[in-house]
This record gives sequence, C-alpha cells and structure tokens, in this order.
Amino acid sequence: MDRIKSKDTVWAAKVMTPDEAALMIEPGMTLGTSGFTPAGHPKVIPPALARRFKSLSQKSSVNLYTGASVGDELDGELARANAIHRRLPYQTQKDVRKQINDGLICYLDMHLSHVPDQLRYGYLGKLDVAIIEAVGITEKGEIIPSTSVGNVPVFLDEAHKIMIEINTSQPEALEGFHDIYMPQMPPKRKSIPILSSTDRIGSPYYKIDPDKVAAIVYSDVEDSVADFKAPDEMSKWMAQHLISFLENEVKEGRLPAKLRPLQSGVGTTANAVLAGLQASAFKDLHFYSEVIQDSVLHLIDSGTFSFASATSLTLSKQGREHFYGHIKDYRNHVLLRPQEISNHPEVIRRLGIISMNTAIEVDLCGHVNSTNIMGNHMMNGIGGSGDFTRNAALSIFMTPSIAKDGDISAIVPFVSHCDHTEHDVHVVVTEQGVADLRGKCPEEKAFELISKCAHPDYREPLHDYAVKYFRHHHIGHQPSEALSWHARFLKDGSMK
Amino acid sequence: MDRIKSKDTVWAAKVMTPDEAALMIEPGMTLGTSGFTPAGHPKVIPPALARRFKSLSQKSSVNLYTGASVGDELDGELARANAIHRRLPYQTQKDVRKQINDGLICYLDMHLSHVPDQLRYGYLGKLDVAIIEAVGITEKGEIIPSTSVGNVPVFLDEAHKIMIEINTSQPEALEGFHDIYMPQMPPKRKSIPILSSTDRIGSPYYKIDPDKVAAIVYSDVEDSVADFKAPDEMSKWMAQHLISFLENEVKEGRLPAKLRPLQSGVGTTANAVLAGLQASAFKDLHFYSEVIQDSVLHLIDSGTFSFASATSLTLSKQGREHFYGHIKDYRNHVLLRPQEISNHPEVIRRLGIISMNTAIEVDLCGHVNSTNIMGNHMMNGIGGSGDFTRNAALSIFMTPSIAKDGDISAIVPFVSHCDHTEHDVHVVVTEQGVADLRGKCPEEKAFELISKCAHPDYREPLHDYAVKYFRHHHIGHQPSEALSWHARFLKDGSMK
Repeated sequence: MDRIKSKDTVWAAKVMTPDEAALMIEPGMTLGTSGFTPAGHPKVIPPALARRFKSLSQKSSVNLYTGASVGDELDGELARANAIHRRLPYQTQKDVRKQINDGLICYLDMHLSHVPDQLRYGYLGKLDVAIIEAVGITEKGEIIPSTSVGNVPVFLDEAHKIMIEINTSQPEALEGFHDIYMPQMPPKRKSIPILSSTDRIGSPYYKIDPDKVAAIVYSDVEDSVADFKAPDEMSKWMAQHLISFLENEVKEGRLPAKLRPLQSGVGTTANAVLAGLQASAFKDLHFYSEVIQDSVLHLIDSGTFSFASATSLTLSKQGREHFYGHIKDYRNHVLLRPQEISNHPEVIRRLGIISMNTAIEVDLCGHVNSTNIMGNHMMNGIGGSGDFTRNAALSIFMTPSIAKDGDISAIVPFVSHCDHTEHDVHVVVTEQGVADLRGKCPEEKAFELISKCAHPDYREPLHDYAVKYFRHHHIGHQPSEALSWHARFLKDGSMK
Repeated sequence: MDRIKSKDTVWAAKVMTPDEAALMIEPGMTLGTSGFTPAGHPKVIPPALARRFKSLSQKSSVNLYTGASVGDELDGELARANAIHRRLPYQTQKDVRKQINDGLICYLDMHLSHVPDQLRYGYLGKLDVAIIEAVGITEKGEIIPSTSVGNVPVFLDEAHKIMIEINTSQPEALEGFHDIYMPQMPPKRKSIPILSSTDRIGSPYYKIDPDKVAAIVYSDVEDSVADFKAPDEMSKWMAQHLISFLENEVKEGRLPAKLRPLQSGVGTTANAVLAGLQASAFKDLHFYSEVIQDSVLHLIDSGTFSFASATSLTLSKQGREHFYGHIKDYRNHVLLRPQEISNHPEVIRRLGIISMNTAIEVDLCGHVNSTNIMGNHMMNGIGGSGDFTRNAALSIFMTPSIAKDGDISAIVPFVSHCDHTEHDVHVVVTEQGVADLRGKCPEEKAFELISKCAHPDYREPLHDYAVKYFRHHHIGHQPSEALSWHARFLKDGSMK
C-alpha cells in the first residue's frame, strides 16, 4: 500500500482484486485505457475481464479505445476472448489484426492526435470506464503516470468511472518525467505554449475527482517490450542514405547544423536510422516524437540528442535496467506528454519537425500507403504518421524497395490504399537511394522515384508506365491499368 | 500620382509603363504574384510580359507562383503566350488547365498553407520578382493591399525585386481591412496569437525595403469576378440537408447554438449553402475561411454572420458596388489575412472550424477525390480544402450524387485519385442526404454512404460491392475490381 501516499481513506477503500474490478465492466461498455506501445497499459484488469466475459453464456464484448498499440495483456487477452467489438485508434497485435481483417472487430484507423477532440466533441460515444496504469498516488491525491501517457488525460476527463492499476514494477522514480496538459474546448482554447521541445507546460500528475474512482488494483506485471534488434543490411543502407541526405541539406543551407527536431516511427528501419545518427557528426539534436526506444537513450548518452520528448517510454528489459540505473542523468533530457501534444499539428509546424516514417508502398505521384497491404489487408494503422507528415517542415518516408523476395515492388504505379497524399510527401528513401520530391510536378516525381528509389528489377516497367501516363500528362493513369501490378501479384504471386 | 502619399522621391522615380517593367523580367525567372481568385492579382504587367515573350524568337517562359487561382490577365494571358513553365499552387483557368493536362505546364498542386514555409525552407527555388497589386503607398512608405492578400507577405520577403501595380479602380477605402502577420522561422517561431476569428495580430500594411522596388506601374483594370449565380436545384437540396444536419448537431449538444466558425469552399454549391444559412435561424456566426463572396456580405447584412475573416474579397461588380457603398458598415465585420494565416492548421484546430468543401467523388471508405476527374484529368487543385479538412472540428464534403446526366456516380467503390483520406472525412452530403461517417469503421461507412448519399440508380451495384468487399473484411478491395467503374465509364461512357 505504500504507493498510495495520500492519507485520504477514499483511496484505500477502493482497493480490490482485478476480478472484483472486472465485475463492474458490463458487455457493451466503452473502455478508454492507458498504453501506447506495450508500455504503460493496464495489465491485470483486462485479463480478468477476458476471463469474466468468456464465462458468460452470451457473446460479450466492449469497445476498446487506447492511445495506440498496447501489450498482449490487453489487446491479446481480450481478442482471444472475442471480447472486442470496436477498436481505435491503432494496433499491432496479431489476434486483433486477424479479427479486424475478418470483419469481426470494427476498427477505426485514426490519426492519433484526433482522438481526444473527437471524444470531447461527442463523435465517439460516451466513455464508461477509464482503466489506467499508474506508479502511485501522491500525498495530495494526484496520480503519477507510468511509462506512457497516450490518451489518459482525456479518458480520465470523459469517463464515467475510473479504475487504476498501481504497477509496483514501475519505479517511483518515474515521478516528474511527465508533463500533463489539456487543451480547453473552443472557443476558450488557447495556444499550446510549447516553443521548444524542452518546454514544460503542465503538471507531472493526473488530477482526478476521487469520487469517479471505482477500483484500485495492484499489479506487478512488467512492460513487455521486445528486445532491441540489430538493424539488417537493408535498414543500414536506408539509414546511411537518409543521413547523407540530411548532411547535404545542411551543406546546402536548407537545414541548420543542429537540424530541426526529429520525429521517428518505431521498428527496424527507425532503429537503424537512430543507430546511424549515433555514428554521424550530428550533436545536440532535439527529438520530438511519439516513442522513446532504447536507441534514443543511446543517442542521449552519446550527446547526439540533448532532449527527447514523446508520449511513451518503450524500453526493452535491458533498456529499462539501463534507464533506471542512470535515471538522474535522464531527468533533464526526457519528457513524456499526452499524445495530443506530442502529435499536435500546431506544435509540429511551429517547431519545424523533420518527420521520418515507414511506408508500405509509394506510388509514382508520391502518394503513400502506410496501412493496407495490397489495399485489402490491414497491417497496423496510420498511427501518428499523418499528424507529423502533414505538418513537418521536412517529411520523409522510408521503405525497402522490394518485399517478398522481390515479388513485390514498394514503388508502384498507383497505391492500393492512400494514407498520405502527393501533397504531403517530400522525400522517399529506399536502400537504393533518396528521391527528393520537393518542388517537383508529378512527371518529375515519377522519374525521380524510379531512378533513385525503385529496385533495378522494376525500373524498366515503371519507366514504361511513367512514359505512357506521366509524359504529356499531368497525372494520366488509366483506371484499367493503375492497380494492375497489385492484381498481378494476387493472381500470380509476383508483380514481375 | 495621388495614390503615392510618401514624400520620399524613391517611389516616384520607379514609376514606369507596364512594358518597361516587363523588360526587366527574363525568361526562366520565377515570379511570385498577388491574387487569390480573380481578385487582387496584377493586371497590366503580365499582359505586357506575354506580349514581350511572344515577340522573342525563342520559346520563353517563367515559373508562376501565386496565392491560388488568379484572373485571366495573369494566368490566361501568360498561358496563351505559352509563357508558363512551372505553376503553383492552384488554378482554375481553362488555358492553364489544358496545358497542365497536356504536360506543357509543370504543375505543383499544393496545400495553400504550405507554400510560404516551402519557399522559406528553400524547396521552391529562389524568387526573382514579386509582382503585387496595391491600392497605394502611405505617407510612411507602407503598401496598402488591394482585394486579396494571398502569399504576398512571403513573396515580398523572399523576392529579389518587387514590382507594384497601383490599381486606381480599387478604392482607397480598402485601407485598414487587412491584417498582415508573418511567422518567423523555427526555432524562433511563436504561436499565432489568434484566439478568435476577429483577432487582429499584425499590421494593415506590407512593409518593404524601397530599394527592392524595381517598378511601380499604374493600372485601372477592375477585378473580374463573375456575377453571382442563383443556386440550382441540386445545390439547394444539398444546402437544405447540410443545414438540417447542423441544426440536429446543435439539438444533440455536439455543436453550440452559434455553431463554430465556418469555412466554405467557392462555387455553386458553396453559394447555395451560404444562401441556405440566410434562410436559417442561425445568427451571429463567425466565418473563418479563404474567400468572401457576395453571399457572405448578404449574411453579414442579415446578421447571420457577425464576422468574416478570409484572404480574398471576391466580389462581383454588383457585390463591389454594394460593398463600397456601405464600406463603413463592413469595417468591423470583414478582415483579410495572409493565406498562411487564414489556412493555418494551428488556428483551424484551435477555433474548432466547421469545414465545408466540394468533392469530385467519394469512395466507400470515405476517401475524397478533389482534383482529378477519372484520376487522369486535373480540374483545379486541392486548394485550401486539405488545410481545413485535416484540422477541422467537423469536416464536411458536398457533391451531387451523379454527374454527366447520371453516367457518373460520385459515390464510387474506390477513388481514382485521393486528396483527403478516410482518416479525415467526417460527413458527406449529396442531394440525396447526409452520411455521417464519424465513429464508424469502413463497413459501416460504406453502407451509410450507400443508403444516405448514393443516387438510387447506383445503390444496388454499390451495395453488391460493399457486401462483397466490406462485409467480413476491414477494407477488402480487389485491385482488379476497385477502379472498374472508372474503366467502364472511359470505355463505354457510363458507370452503369
């Protein structure tokens, strides 16, 4: 009980088991939970809920709103109990993905920065229960967030009831790493007063009405972030091209020597880029992004990054040990914000962010597909890539030029699903090179992408397509041919 | 000469004829001009330039950067002289459109709010000459803008030379209707301090270095805005549906009685909506948009709008007579800002704008095509629709459900060009009704669009498509079938 410092008995009176808490969650309810990546999500009430719903005679499910993807204890357990009816705004869990693609889960694939306003504006229905993970409760009755913030502030504000999982595996030393700020509703909304990645504008705590708390549950289940994997060759090439490109931008005077704040997606390619920065001459950079992975800590250690602002601390077991072992050193270099703020268009445009995200495929106009393979298989979702790309001073997408042993080209005539339009994409990087689409019309973009980014095996057919439909045209696609590469892959197993 | 109040002889020394000014513009140069719609663009130097280039022995052209579309004196004259090499960010002129679609003009179709930063960041090359229309020059040597602001502030800042057309057909009474504000470059950029549509944050004048002025030319050519047309039946129905929808949002508590500031596109449908508002019970609304048309004045007259902020005053001859006849009454109700500010994502999200734009087609996921008919014929461009849609509190698209006497359905399985993604589109309105896509997954969106918005002639085939590819799927398009409706139209002349 020592994680509850408040003397007010209101808190202790609410302590119960996960199963007791789960009894208060009825089928049909809408839950808003903490969690952004497998970090900071509730880990014991959701499995208890899965058990409870499985034991009911009728198919029972809830609507699950989170920050982004979450850990298996939440998405996996509930999906395997067939207990998710509606899911937003992002996911990466294989059981959830399968049920989405089978039409069993109604999935809203949303810009991460859009969720809070859509809740406030009443577009997503009423929130019955917020279930959040916390490190503890202060003497003043404020809640100390754990390893992610995500959508917690708005969920706490909007939910009818609140359940808190106090996770004793999350060190109390996390206190003070958070900056919680909530925009008001228009017309009273003020500017978000962040002028630098380092600015603190709110409070380190969630402030809630104790009367809304329905349950407090203890947990000791650790965040389950996969170990950091060494980058593969493809990713190393992409990272190298990207860093050379940034170096050249500095040389040409289009970027200052300390660049502008960097945003980076999550995954192998992103890790390779961050590892590549480590080897570069860049120093004292700011990171204004969603997720702080192990590689970001390394960059802080080496002085490449002087500050990292995000909404989630997504560290492997090894990364956590390192972080908590040197936590004093990180205190002035790491900050966690609500995702509404980490991804806010206002802040992104003001700071002049350089966004770096991964694409599934890119077409000859520069449209990007980030979500649906062959236009009909949802992978994860758009996540925050749109929040950053649209408002970035420099927007970059990365992808290996081929997939499936060369049977899929990532540079295609026409994307099979569009998440980022030609109006928003500045630069594309593959292991082949860098296509600079800035200041170019579609015909110029097409030939730039083919010569710089396409795999040699696909350059000739792409060139033929571009000559036919981009020369003597603005954009000249024939609808009967635009998606023929995807149709060929689905029929013959190859785009070749 | 009485439009130049400054006693400094630096100004008078630069007065010359349009032909003399045009002699300073060389082939290959990049020009940045005033103008946003056929209002406030330069009207005598461009025709002189067209004459000059036509008289040269070699094909001669310039890159033309404007605010948005402009009048025939600029786009038309230069296009007919084959004098436009590169064009951005928007156009509506038929000769320009043809040359774009024939691949003769390299056209960059850009979000209107993106142009200034892309210039500052060095993505669009160097600007040689800014040519701007003005009402006059004050005693202090400040420039009084005319009927639009557009990109003039950044063009004046970035251009090597400045040419000013003082248009005596634009009344001096326009002085004071403008609010000129320029964001700084990151990392010094501050928040845009607009908290209400009515806020003034800058100066009524452009402030320039007189040494950069290469020419001052007099003009008396009027803005050439077409007469206001009465809405057709289709548009009236759309307007009625939209207004009923807004009334219901108020009733349901999702909008306040005074709504939130409205943005509206330009054209027949937009005019019908504005005319429809006139007949509604709404009062004291704010308009935060790009263009003030005749209909906006009528709404101010009737008290429906209490304030209109935009970047252009696009009035017909009759509208101008009315405006100038009652200019004192409008002084506290009308404000013109740079398009960077009228379309700024920061301000749009803060104010909670309701955006209303027109679509060419909408697909079953809610993706919107605003630019390319059948995916291969550029109409105008995306304009500001993306700036507003992405950040609006409520984003609405309107289109008649059919075109070409019913041979084209505006609700299609898959858009032939994507300008606004499924992640951004809240509401679709046709003459059939209103589809509310908020809080819905793709399957739900598909059936909502079919039942509420599709034309009865197309409901059955759309329903069949949706059952096949949206039921038991997330998004289940088959690439071989997704664009088959467009292919059929191009082959047989009908989507039926």
